[in-house]
Amino acid sequence: MQTGFSIHRVIVLGTGRMAGFLIPAFRRINMDVIQVYGRNEEHAAALGMQEGIEWTSSINDIIPDADLYVLAVSDSAIPLLAEKLEGLKGLVVHTSGAVPLEALAGLRHNGVFYPLQTLGQSPPPDMSDTPICIEGSGEPETTALKSLAERMSERVEVLNSSERLRLHLAAVLVNNFANHLYALAESLLKEGGVPYDLLHPLMRRTTALACSERVEQLQTGPAIRGDEDTIRRHLELLKQQGDLAALYRALSLSVQQHHNVKSADNEL
Amino acid sequence: MQTGFSIHRVIVLGTGRMAGFLIPAFRRINMDVIQVYGRNEEHAAALGMQEGIEWTSSINDIIPDADLYVLAVSDSAIPLLAEKLEGLKGLVVHTSGAVPLEALAGLRHNGVFYPLQTLGQSPPPDMSDTPICIEGSGEPETTALKSLAERMSERVEVLNSSERLRLHLAAVLVNNFANHLYALAESLLKEGGVPYDLLHPLMRRTTALACSERVEQLQTGPAIRGDEDTIRRHLELLKQQGDLAALYRALSLSVQQHHNVKSADNEL
Repeated sequence: MQTGFSIHRVIVLGTGRMAGFLIPAFRRINMDVIQVYGRNEEHAAALGMQEGIEWTSSINDIIPDADLYVLAVSDSAIPLLAEKLEGLKGLVVHTSGAVPLEALAGLRHNGVFYPLQTLGQSPPPDMSDTPICIEGSGEPETTALKSLAERMSERVEVLNSSERLRLHLAAVLVNNFANHLYALAESLLKEGGVPYDLLHPLMRRTTALACSERVEQLQTGPAIRGDEDTIRRHLELLKQQGDLAALYRALSLSVQQHHNVKSADNEL
Repeated sequence: MQTGFSIHRVIVLGTGRMAGFLIPAFRRINMDVIQVYGRNEEHAAALGMQEGIEWTSSINDIIPDADLYVLAVSDSAIPLLAEKLEGLKGLVVHTSGAVPLEALAGLRHNGVFYPLQTLGQSPPPDMSDTPICIEGSGEPETTALKSLAERMSERVEVLNSSERLRLHLAAVLVNNFANHLYALAESLLKEGGVPYDLLHPLMRRTTALACSERVEQLQTGPAIRGDEDTIRRHLELLKQQGDLAALYRALSLSVQQHHNVKSADNEL
């Protein structure tokens, strides 16, 4: 099939977690990463030398005839960088869940290449197990990005910008907010001299079960049971911690609303 | 070492998830489960026949000379049942995280045997990987329960009632509330036609990393970054869902309070 785009020579713009994740993943499928760009010279040099790739910190020195330019930069840096790349003939993509495709509308061929995983921790995640969500400014761009992504990952999905934002919001719930609950639990236990590792098997099983699609049916606990005695005991324990008590109430209420539990509970 | 208690003949009171989890686990270490009791005759009969154990639904027919009586019943049923067992010479334990030991104070030898895991889903969890928290009314009771638990699980901890309640509260955060976040994420995605399985690798990695003890350092996302643009986009997406928007705000605020992030964010 003729895609209209043959992607082989890639330039990565950015020197952070996403760039560090993508460069080896591109190379693993024999793409030629010909240059890295970073606004900060030291970071650009460090990444370039680490990977053995030509690097630059000058936007004017970016090689103009690559097939793919990947903006692996913070959300707020995307529009500025995009503006400076106008006129390029290659395909320019960003890697953000929350930024719409239209941020790249000034570029002839544009798209989104969004690997959904938490980065920056060691060991890095496996790209083949990382879902990649793609979007193209047109059919040829979409086709080219899809076929690239499918060489890198077993799970590729074409999503438009509004679907991707929705996914990003859901990711905030299951990553940022779940991690925050874990951190609050650890703090609570530490404060009482109770070892945090006692929770680990429960955390793992809870998450494994929730990946089984029956997540609605898995809800248990005092909130969905309307178990006022237990809720009262928990809130009593939190009475010196108004912030956490408020969050406990908000989450319990949300459980009850979501499951249409009639709360007879004056504590919440 | 003389523990004062030799535990071999066990009676399980209750016919629910906990009873169903404990009976095979006791038998695996060659304990003799001599009777099951259930208030509901049908349930008692079903469990007794399934396990090939004598069963009764009459509290007066409970065999009086067992070594260990395990109250695997709901929290609210514990005091009532305990009252009816007064006079027994054996060790009587309950299996609840949230009920203090003193609920069994009328019994000569009492304690708590609390396996911390989510039950009732198939396949059942592995008891050897399930932390067991124990408490005894005295030194001999504690010693006997500890040695019993150590034959069943690799992770045994002696906790008093206030430590156990704290652990139970932490378990609500990482199990009930984390599962609720997963359910909200699934609903959001379903509503937008985005496949939920795209989140699974992120959920698994988030939890695996949080079991590494560095959970405080793992916090990322718009709230801790003070990323108002993204927060605004997410709240815009939730504007038809006031309940979920309120929870998003409460969780973001809690992240910022926990990490002492100065919020310049008027949206929250």
